Amino acid sequence: MRSKRFTAIVLLWVLLVSNLAFGRQNSPSSGATPKDPNDPIERIKDEGLNRSQVMQILSYLTDVIGPRLTGSPQMKRANEWTRDKLAEWGLQNAHLEPWGPFGRGWELKDFSVEVIAPQTIPIIAYPKAWSPGIDITADVVYVDARDENELQKFKGTLKGKIVLTAPMREVKAHFEPLGARMTEKDLLELANAPMPGRQPSRRFDLNDPRTRERIQNSIFAAKKLQFFTDEGAALLIDPSANGDGGTLFVGAASVPQPLDTSSPAATMRSLFMGRIRPYDKNAPPIIPQMVMAIEHYNRLARMIKAGERVRMKVKMDVQFYDQDLMAYNTIAEIPGTDKKDEIVMLGAHMDSWHAGTGATDNAAGVAVCMEAVRILKALGLQPRRTIRIALWSGEEQGLLGSRAYVAQHFGKLEESEDSSFMRMVSGGSGAPPKIIPGPEYDKLSVYFNLDNGTGRIRGVYLQGNEAARSIFREWLMPFREMGAATLTLANTGGTDHLSFDAIGLPGFQFIQDEIEYETRTHHSNMDVYDRIQADDMKQAATIMAAFVYNAAMMNERFPRKAMRQ
Amino acid sequence: MRSKRFTAIVLLWVLLVSNLAFGRQNSPSSGATPKDPNDPIERIKDEGLNRSQVMQILSYLTDVIGPRLTGSPQMKRANEWTRDKLAEWGLQNAHLEPWGPFGRGWELKDFSVEVIAPQTIPIIAYPKAWSPGIDITADVVYVDARDENELQKFKGTLKGKIVLTAPMREVKAHFEPLGARMTEKDLLELANAPMPGRQPSRRFDLNDPRTRERIQNSIFAAKKLQFFTDEGAALLIDPSANGDGGTLFVGAASVPQPLDTSSPAATMRSLFMGRIRPYDKNAPPIIPQMVMAIEHYNRLARMIKAGERVRMKVKMDVQFYDQDLMAYNTIAEIPGTDKKDEIVMLGAHMDSWHAGTGATDNAAGVAVCMEAVRILKALGLQPRRTIRIALWSGEEQGLLGSRAYVAQHFGKLEESEDSSFMRMVSGGSGAPPKIIPGPEYDKLSVYFNLDNGTGRIRGVYLQGNEAARSIFREWLMPFREMGAATLTLANTGGTDHLSFDAIGLPGFQFIQDEIEYETRTHHSNMDVYDRIQADDMKQAATIMAAFVYNAAMMNERFPRKAMRQ
Repeated sequence: MRSKRFTAIVLLWVLLVSNLAFGRQNSPSSGATPKDPNDPIERIKDEGLNRSQVMQILSYLTDVIGPRLTGSPQMKRANEWTRDKLAEWGLQNAHLEPWGPFGRGWELKDFSVEVIAPQTIPIIAYPKAWSPGIDITADVVYVDARDENELQKFKGTLKGKIVLTAPMREVKAHFEPLGARMTEKDLLELANAPMPGRQPSRRFDLNDPRTRERIQNSIFAAKKLQFFTDEGAALLIDPSANGDGGTLFVGAASVPQPLDTSSPAATMRSLFMGRIRPYDKNAPPIIPQMVMAIEHYNRLARMIKAGERVRMKVKMDVQFYDQDLMAYNTIAEIPGTDKKDEIVMLGAHMDSWHAGTGATDNAAGVAVCMEAVRILKALGLQPRRTIRIALWSGEEQGLLGSRAYVAQHFGKLEESEDSSFMRMVSGGSGAPPKIIPGPEYDKLSVYFNLDNGTGRIRGVYLQGNEAARSIFREWLMPFREMGAATLTLANTGGTDHLSFDAIGLPGFQFIQDEIEYETRTHHSNMDVYDRIQADDMKQAATIMAAFVYNAAMMNERFPRKAMRQ
Repeated sequence: MRSKRFTAIVLLWVLLVSNLAFGRQNSPSSGATPKDPNDPIERIKDEGLNRSQVMQILSYLTDVIGPRLTGSPQMKRANEWTRDKLAEWGLQNAHLEPWGPFGRGWELKDFSVEVIAPQTIPIIAYPKAWSPGIDITADVVYVDARDENELQKFKGTLKGKIVLTAPMREVKAHFEPLGARMTEKDLLELANAPMPGRQPSRRFDLNDPRTRERIQNSIFAAKKLQFFTDEGAALLIDPSANGDGGTLFVGAASVPQPLDTSSPAATMRSLFMGRIRPYDKNAPPIIPQMVMAIEHYNRLARMIKAGERVRMKVKMDVQFYDQDLMAYNTIAEIPGTDKKDEIVMLGAHMDSWHAGTGATDNAAGVAVCMEAVRILKALGLQPRRTIRIALWSGEEQGLLGSRAYVAQHFGKLEESEDSSFMRMVSGGSGAPPKIIPGPEYDKLSVYFNLDNGTGRIRGVYLQGNEAARSIFREWLMPFREMGAATLTLANTGGTDHLSFDAIGLPGFQFIQDEIEYETRTHHSNMDVYDRIQADDMKQAATIMAAFVYNAAMMNERFPRKAMRQ
């Protein structure tokens, strides 16, 4: 007995010494000082990496709740499930905050689609969101018109028909990988980015030939949709604009709009402003619409061109919901201590498109934010400021949920939608609009957003806020070994931090690895749980938790950038 | 007028001179001698590259005729269409040659599949070939059993249910390209391959742990199928074993088989020999079966594990054809001149699986062979030997069409199926079986096959026939600049040249670039026209035409390899 105990003691001693040596050897690469297991950031890493629940959260949101189109019953269920889960973890004030009215909810109730003649062909296709239903067996017409003249050739031929609405799209072999992580070159380019200037949105820069081409395409698309409507087509089928091999990208159904091409400005206004949305309560009746996998679309087009009479059977049963036209954000808090009136926010949009389950866009961001506050609660950390999590809706329709929330709580611009549009088009010339602060404008310290897919965090977009650089540099030190070190002055857009940034509040989106975001997942039928990289999610959740905690513990409110004069 | 005419003459003269100079400058890189436009091979290249019809043939076969499952009406239509097309081009003796009986034809008449509870989910899935039909709405059970003990837990729970038959499969991001061409390294390895020896087929080598694992898996699969059958499951759904993103791989339905595990030899025999096929005229009734896209399969499995009650609605209407149990090969000839009794053959299998349109497997090979003979006819070339094209059926069920054709025309082995199997398992020990020559055994010079997808030809597998090397080396000279130069002694298998090789006749398959054959197309729902590389097809057709023409013009019959003693 004695010798065994002695051996055990020696072993324990050896282990301790070797651990210490190991710790010392590693300290230079992992920070200036050895890791202290009681350091909150080290504890966050330990909880987030070793006892993660991020994938369970993600599976429930995507697999069980499913797609979360704004206004849909599944979106509401996600609101309620996340609220209850956050409350269960001990967050306070967990509630749904309505905004709107947004418009009608929509849900697919029954769907089948196949070619039945000249032979049976199972077809991969999805209805566009807010499309009306249809139950039809009809001939298919291939409208390969590239301009209005060619379109006129189809006059009188489309009534009651199923219409392939656009020319075939060539599909290439994939000699390049579909997925990628940021390279050192990519990161260096970001690190060296200059201060973002005032530039007209490239989307609206009429000096850019791509913009002019895009506008021409938009005008033709609008006229084509009107033509199909006037002709009485029964069902419109678009080829998927991206993706192949069974992956297709699906958005909302199109509504014919008044088009005014009397001047460039009028054209721009009528193309991009005051549009009727398919979810508007009083939207006019539209033709049912769907998107088809490109290989199936191309095959049908070639069959028709070869003289075959192609007939399809489509059953699309949908349900609209117009009892409650409001939409909801899920909100919950970890109350602060000595600075509890001030707020640090984190958030991600929870709404998604409907053909997949919105996994990378953006259950991933939601699961990371939820996991971040779960970690903080699990560790019993007491933040000085109140930490508030927001899970937005309506992002896919134009950051609607976060914009509404920010307007109500923090403030808005004294500017009409029209002048906002003209300012965007012109590159922000003229005096910037005045900010009308809301009740919590001075209370918000900083907002962190996650919405660029499943890829791990590689750094932060500073949105031109140079004062944030040294703060984030320090906060990222413990995460360098996990690949997150790069700070860029550059802006990034397209998601909910813009709602904060627009009124001068610090709102940040992290730099993330792309993985397969553009090629396979972003708005596709294959944006599903299996696309998620578990290790990346865990890394992102620990960084989000650490950033939020650090922000909540600062002595001063997070520095704001000077508003442009 | 005069000055214009003068200018024209000068221009013409300049063009001629510059063309000649251009031709001379290029001659060193394109062969030892300047190209002679009257050289038959140069004419073949010109016709095949500049007036190709290979993509039109391919489109008709895949888009219009569609999938060509052996025994199906579409296969018969493909037989007849190719026969008529070959006759239209002026080939002689174009006809269908029956073989068999093969068994029943099968065709999908109506198919829809969706999850209807707890929410509507459109599902990507395909019936397995020769599956019976079903019209059902039922609960889904997830059988994740990995061994017989785990399977027993499901006893009494499967009656009338839709069964997910196997554990989930992990899906990874694609950080590597799906498509690739042969690298210099790949080609060098082939070039340096040693003489293929007599080795037991790796598929049956019991010393290989992978073989043992595969056999264990086969035994478990057989027992599982019997269990599902005994329990009265209504519909079996497999996860696609490969592919993702909407691409799935689908073969034939499984039939429960008697299993004898009394000894290793008995196990092997009962697993691999004398099996009942789902297309056998008297095959017993089986459970309807289909394959589901992996992401959808995994989602349903996770929903069920999370406690959700998943219900599916499946309508699968199929038609069996048993009036004519024979299958057919399409045969046609370009008659020879002074050696017209001798035959040079080219061929490819035309049958396919049913979920795609069999584009790379193997409408590509068919279109290349047809285009090759079209080129020869279009140029009015007069071969010395008769050139015979064969478009096989039954390849996917075991090279059945070509084996039957070879047995009838050229000869067969004096060997029972059982001893053939034992010879394959043992690596060919003992005396080789005797060849019983058929009527044309001495007439066949050589057979060329194409069946490795859409990729261009990079060289030839010599199948251990060293005497072929110098001949092919010369024939490939004009195609070096098109990437085809490598000769390998190695064997390649899996397709119809083996039917010739087995009885000592020269039968060759070309080395081809892989492109996306294994990752995306081979037996998948996405093996469709859009996967085809047009330039590769043109290259392959010209090489096929040149090889066939060269073989038909040789003074001597193509050298045969010494049969193993």
